[in-house]
Amino acid sequence: MATNITWHDGLTRQERSQARGQKGYTIWFTGLSASGKSTVATALEQHLLHLGLAAYRLDGDNVRFGLNKDLGFSEKDRNENIRRIAEVAKLFADSSTVAITSFISPYRADRQLARELHAQTTQAGNDALDFIEVYVDIPIEVAEQRDPKGLYKKARAGEIKEFTGISAPYEAPLEPEITIRTHQNTVEECVAQIVEYLQGKGLLPAAAQ
Amino acid sequence: MATNITWHDGLTRQERSQARGQKGYTIWFTGLSASGKSTVATALEQHLLHLGLAAYRLDGDNVRFGLNKDLGFSEKDRNENIRRIAEVAKLFADSSTVAITSFISPYRADRQLARELHAQTTQAGNDALDFIEVYVDIPIEVAEQRDPKGLYKKARAGEIKEFTGISAPYEAPLEPEITIRTHQNTVEECVAQIVEYLQGKGLLPAAAQ
Repeated sequence: MATNITWHDGLTRQERSQARGQKGYTIWFTGLSASGKSTVATALEQHLLHLGLAAYRLDGDNVRFGLNKDLGFSEKDRNENIRRIAEVAKLFADSSTVAITSFISPYRADRQLARELHAQTTQAGNDALDFIEVYVDIPIEVAEQRDPKGLYKKARAGEIKEFTGISAPYEAPLEPEITIRTHQNTVEECVAQIVEYLQGKGLLPAAAQ
Repeated sequence: MATNITWHDGLTRQERSQARGQKGYTIWFTGLSASGKSTVATALEQHLLHLGLAAYRLDGDNVRFGLNKDLGFSEKDRNENIRRIAEVAKLFADSSTVAITSFISPYRADRQLARELHAQTTQAGNDALDFIEVYVDIPIEVAEQRDPKGLYKKARAGEIKEFTGISAPYEAPLEPEITIRTHQNTVEECVAQIVEYLQGKGLLPAAAQ
């Protein structure tokens, strides 16, 4: 009869990284609708998985219809949407997974909050988590020409209110870790650019390089 | 100049599992305060990590002070707390990680919702995710005797309102996948019992058995 339980403290982030053989961190894509965020993020996720790394992409499909389905599009709800995404990305990073987020996230203050959350450590012995902002920088004219979902057209017609780049601001990052341009480079080139950055920062295990 | 982007659809859950070499699912602990949930959950997480699996534990420390820090203890907020935890566990399971949750989660309806969320598949080609409820079943007298944080004492003194088992109900699972008893078995025995269940269900990769 074991009535005296040993209260385990759990693993530190470093111990988990060691057991898993990789570090967790967050790669945060930001850019206009139709800028190519999800395309590059998806290709990057697949590339990292093929290298044998744990990676997971958070996007509108798996967040808006699940965790954040109670949120609308008011300013307060948009902020809360990004806050929760940042917290969940942080949990994935803490679990030694590469979290990849793919949301317009148009406001600097929201992205700054996401960055700061990753820098905060509540558990003793944990390092801060890396936060890599990837700015998908294309002229709005190109995004509007692509318009794969017809959203820009609807925004111009006034059928969608407060559409980023048309009737609501997009605040471009001032110091993103990486800037990619999907109108000048292929998806593969954009992925290679990000992978090169990760290698330079020691964020890919030696075996995967 | 690549202006025509191929729109990747992303990996299905099965493709990700294959790339990662393991299935994701959720192990949901429920039980009274001081029943031993976190102790067994932590030991299980460590065991799975040592087997080479990706596993991650969601608990009060990494959820209440982060994602759910906007929530209080009203009935509505308690429900929302469990709903978000269930959605995040589902994301981890979807990412091919073994999600382990360690919360009192006293209400059947909340746990049933968590179970149903895992059964719902929004993306075509995805199987439902396994949801394994682990009932940590101990007499309240034993929990109250342990009382490592002095919470039962405070609840008896009326200093904590609506304390599960004292002044608020605990609705025991009717058909949990696993029942463990930390007052009769060691932590190691409880972990072995869960691992045996996972093996029987084919939820551990052959290499880890």
